[in-house]
Amino acid sequence: MKFICAKNDLSEALQIVSKAIANKPQTPIMSGVYIKADHSTLELQANNLEIAISTKIAVNTESAGEIVVIGKYLLEIIRKLSGEVVTFEHDEEHHVVNIKSGSANFNLLSMSPEDFPTMKFPETYSTFYLKPNMFRELIRKTVYSCAVEDVRPMFTGCCLEIKGNDITMSATNTHRIAVAFDNIDEPLEPASFIIPSKTLNEILKLLDSAQSNVKIDCSSKVISFTIDNVYIISRLIDGEFPPYEKVVPKSSDTIATINVKALSETVDRVALISKETQYNTIRFIFRQDGITISSDSPEVGTAEEHVAARVEGPDIDISFNVKYIVDVLKVTDSDECIIKLTKPLSPIDYREKDNDNFIYIVTPVRT
Amino acid sequence: MKFICAKNDLSEALQIVSKAIANKPQTPIMSGVYIKADHSTLELQANNLEIAISTKIAVNTESAGEIVVIGKYLLEIIRKLSGEVVTFEHDEEHHVVNIKSGSANFNLLSMSPEDFPTMKFPETYSTFYLKPNMFRELIRKTVYSCAVEDVRPMFTGCCLEIKGNDITMSATNTHRIAVAFDNIDEPLEPASFIIPSKTLNEILKLLDSAQSNVKIDCSSKVISFTIDNVYIISRLIDGEFPPYEKVVPKSSDTIATINVKALSETVDRVALISKETQYNTIRFIFRQDGITISSDSPEVGTAEEHVAARVEGPDIDISFNVKYIVDVLKVTDSDECIIKLTKPLSPIDYREKDNDNFIYIVTPVRT
Repeated sequence: MKFICAKNDLSEALQIVSKAIANKPQTPIMSGVYIKADHSTLELQANNLEIAISTKIAVNTESAGEIVVIGKYLLEIIRKLSGEVVTFEHDEEHHVVNIKSGSANFNLLSMSPEDFPTMKFPETYSTFYLKPNMFRELIRKTVYSCAVEDVRPMFTGCCLEIKGNDITMSATNTHRIAVAFDNIDEPLEPASFIIPSKTLNEILKLLDSAQSNVKIDCSSKVISFTIDNVYIISRLIDGEFPPYEKVVPKSSDTIATINVKALSETVDRVALISKETQYNTIRFIFRQDGITISSDSPEVGTAEEHVAARVEGPDIDISFNVKYIVDVLKVTDSDECIIKLTKPLSPIDYREKDNDNFIYIVTPVRT
Repeated sequence: MKFICAKNDLSEALQIVSKAIANKPQTPIMSGVYIKADHSTLELQANNLEIAISTKIAVNTESAGEIVVIGKYLLEIIRKLSGEVVTFEHDEEHHVVNIKSGSANFNLLSMSPEDFPTMKFPETYSTFYLKPNMFRELIRKTVYSCAVEDVRPMFTGCCLEIKGNDITMSATNTHRIAVAFDNIDEPLEPASFIIPSKTLNEILKLLDSAQSNVKIDCSSKVISFTIDNVYIISRLIDGEFPPYEKVVPKSSDTIATINVKALSETVDRVALISKETQYNTIRFIFRQDGITISSDSPEVGTAEEHVAARVEGPDIDISFNVKYIVDVLKVTDSDECIIKLTKPLSPIDYREKDNDNFIYIVTPVRT
């Protein structure tokens, strides 16, 4: 195998696929990037068995072939090369890849491509397309609500559900749930998948610069995403999400409309006191003239601050895990948010003002 | 105690003194910042028993007093306040400091100032002054060469030596030594101190923005530095540095003059291969047409690159701990450097071209 390519193209491609290199590879091959030169195209691929990412770049191939090289070293070496062009040549006899650029001359040990777990996709699958902006917003508004680790693996993923023209993404760790909606132009067959949050976080980064609609192929066990020239396969998580409609409070007694920037800055300050305490609790007292937000820690002291708000209905004194409030404020795009409450131990309903496509429900904590 | 002050002044002052808060405080008081309000001045102080830093800001004092507050929380709270002015009031009965700014209202537990190890300085000492730029360069060119941890504590500090008009700073971990020189206008009494590298690293940051000459008071056990309105006391390290003159090679067989940028970039790339190997070794082969720099790792592969250089004298093949080369290249300000060599296992002499005020000697490694 021998090819010549632009250093920057190769560096960018390695940057993209390297996200799928296993952090703690259990075998040497799992630390590798698979590279295949064919005619005028180079395919790069990494696979940690949860998610696989591949991409292609244009190269000038002198002889075709495929190899696997340790990804971490390859990435750093290519990034630091001084030349604009890289020559890549495999010495099959000595299992060494020679990389030349400018006056630099590297020889990296190669591994056998037969040992590499290249991507496979089942023969039966269905396909649909999503606009990159819409898909990004569905992920961004929900993915932070997934459980990080859970005895029930399904809560470590987001549920993507399609019914006719409606598309819904939801995520929950059972203490809070985030649901985002949108509409698609062409109605689709009903479908539902639980996609690992790690996969969605990688996709989120790629969607920022995506130009074309995202092609999604789905089967019962795996799903794939084609984002411009990047192809991602991810396993799906088994399970069935409880219908989010069941946890949305049916009625509310107190309704508060609050400036998001003022609320964010206040929560940020008040949370300083409790951030290292066991439950990381923040207390909200809703009254006619606004909200008094406070926290305390026996070892540090107390914090209290008042935020102006339009509050209708009875006063209510309620406490939360501060992370659940901070998280949703970070993805809130509207100037004002609306919080609907019933009782101190009943879930609250958080919405962006003038946005019907997002629901966030949080269970308070008992203090 | 009650005072009112500008939020930004207090935030900056806390930022400065917090560098002396113990990382792992052994008693609660060691996590504190000492605060003393007196007439129109507020003094802040932190002390980890190795180094103490104090500074003063202008405040509007309503009642004088002194307290100690947990530094980490105070620093973060003041930084995040929204108002421009902060009101600080101590409730002695309840051991609580009330901090108000804008709508924020914090109550932090206070500790007793009697328990705080405030700075003491011996009555007998001598004083001299250094230009901030000169002092910064003496530190910057040497401090990285100190030992991080050593059975001989003196090698964890830099030796500052004064003889008449000559001032010398030297640092060594016994495998390499860096020596920087300068001249002072007024001759001083001969003196020599070993200052901990941690102290010098903190001073380095302050010297960047220093306006006036640095006042240095020194006794046999402690030294103090007055940098504008910041006062630092540090313990000194016992010991006597070996004279650096003894390790400077008396003669050389091969002399190379090399472009510093080209050398830095090449070393940076070639070092990628060996950076996780046990000895982190890089090999230099000096020949008439330049230097071939290489490294290898049995698990990864090899790297080799040629750097143009003017080399006079016999060829020589010599290896180093790559860190010792990278470190000195980072503090080299000249466009070219000069390396003088004798034998593959003899120390090399590294200089900046056209700078007689800096010497760096490195012992090679046996491969």
